[in-house]
Amino acid sequence: MEKVKYIFELPMKVRDYEVDAEGIVNNARYLHYLEHTRHEFCEWAGLSFREMRAKGLYPVLNKVEIEYKTPLGLGEKMVSKLWITREGARFVFYQDIFNEQGAQVVKAKVSCVCLENGRLSRGDALVEAFKDFL
Amino acid sequence: MEKVKYIFELPMKVRDYEVDAEGIVNNARYLHYLEHTRHEFCEWAGLSFREMRAKGLYPVLNKVEIEYKTPLGLGEKMVSKLWITREGARFVFYQDIFNEQGAQVVKAKVSCVCLENGRLSRGDALVEAFKDFL
Amino acid sequence: MEKVKYIFELPMKVRDYEVDAEGIVNNARYLHYLEHTRHEFCEWAGLSFREMRAKGLYPVLNKVEIEYKTPLGLGEKMVSKLWITREGARFVFYQDIFNEQGAQVVKAKVSCVCLENGRLSRGDALVEAFKDFL
Amino acid sequence: MEKVKYIFELPMKVRDYEVDAEGIVNNARYLHYLEHTRHEFCEWAGLSFREMRAKGLYPVLNKVEIEYKTPLGLGEKMVSKLWITREGARFVFYQDIFNEQGAQVVKAKVSCVCLENGRLSRGDALVEAFKDFL
Repeated sequence: MEKVKYIFELPMKVRDYEVDAEGIVNNARYLHYLEHTRHEFCEWAGLSFREMRAKGLYPVLNKVEIEYKTPLGLGEKMVSKLWITREGARFVFYQDIFNEQGAQVVKAKVSCVCLENGRLSRGDALVEAFKDFL
Repeated sequence: MEKVKYIFELPMKVRDYEVDAEGIVNNARYLHYLEHTRHEFCEWAGLSFREMRAKGLYPVLNKVEIEYKTPLGLGEKMVSKLWITREGARFVFYQDIFNEQGAQVVKAKVSCVCLENGRLSRGDALVEAFKDFL
Repeated sequence: MEKVKYIFELPMKVRDYEVDAEGIVNNARYLHYLEHTRHEFCEWAGLSFREMRAKGLYPVLNKVEIEYKTPLGLGEKMVSKLWITREGARFVFYQDIFNEQGAQVVKAKVSCVCLENGRLSRGDALVEAFKDFL
Repeated sequence: MEKVKYIFELPMKVRDYEVDAEGIVNNARYLHYLEHTRHEFCEWAGLSFREMRAKGLYPVLNKVEIEYKTPLGLGEKMVSKLWITREGARFVFYQDIFNEQGAQVVKAKVSCVCLENGRLSRGDALVEAFKDFL
């Protein structure tokens, strides 16, 4: 079993336009929540996406696995949590979102690689920036 | 009264994720439909956004007025129509969307200016490209 | 000149997926920001959209006028402000968004009516709920 | 190796607002493409989402696995293809998107269950509707 070791948490709230005709947050929206959480983590850890771009660093997703467990509805609050590991050249984010009652909303595993000036890199600049968290 | 003289029509269909908890297409989505129609028009007229970017031309919206008349729901078909005029340095798109029964969905007026290498321009490159339609 | 009398302010931050290929927040996204601000206002004022739905009340947009003044980019912070008036059966929201430097991002006027159990109503239930703010 | 047996294909084109600041279609947008493809398939096969709702049937995603292989940019065309199997109570969609050159854009596996009047069902109504394709 994976040991959960969250290093970042972001409280968020459903915006009503994110809810679809089923009355629950649309499945694709969770990828937006997950992306926003990763970007806020990067900024908090000291290297925002704006700064990465300025340095020619482009993290690129190569795989997302997401399980939908409890839907979120209009106006609901959530907490989005993550931890990160490195697997070869990949940075792997383990990301979980919980609702206000503590029930798990989604469980996700997100793999990225880092392009540096257009080429696949080992991501050393990111490793340096995030060394306290890997 | 404005004389309506459509020069471009784009058939589209609601994608179900565009419908919100009210069961109708979310208000912001219509701006997406309108933008997509303008971009398809530009490509059809011979100057796509991809090409504009390559030439350093950046059309920028400065005003949108939109009236919501008949909502669209799950799976509905529509036709999005536009015509265009020039008012000073502005390009003004008159855009209307109709549902399958012919009822008007939205009526919009969209004003753009053209940035050329970061500065406000008279948009001569666009006028040249779209001269048959202005 | 309109007297500005904001009654509600919501701090927000650009989520990076809201930025389009131009490097600035996509024009339609501002309607999402505006909607989210109205919904947060309604909840704060004591009648959330979830509660409106439970009572058979459906506010419906009939017109949006929005001027785009200063674009927002990756990771930028903003404050979204509104005040509200009643014009006949319409509720009119005056909404402004400012960036962190205090520059105006958008200026909008949003008109709604209220459907009650599917029929256009005078919105008395909303007037009662929001009477301190009208 | 899985035998690929596509039963439905949908040509689509990138709408420029779907492209983010990286200049490529945002990762969450592909889930929208996949969902729209599934819904178009259902309608084509004879049971649209609108009709499912009218019958009290609510398909719900429980897992998505998606690999990002070749990014799509401004104005690019694609073809979205799927086939479907049943695994226990789950309906599993295998979905692939290809660009105009035939390169694979994403490869996805999407699992759904069917709620019937709020309860998990065996999805017999869906099996009946889609029996020619399972």
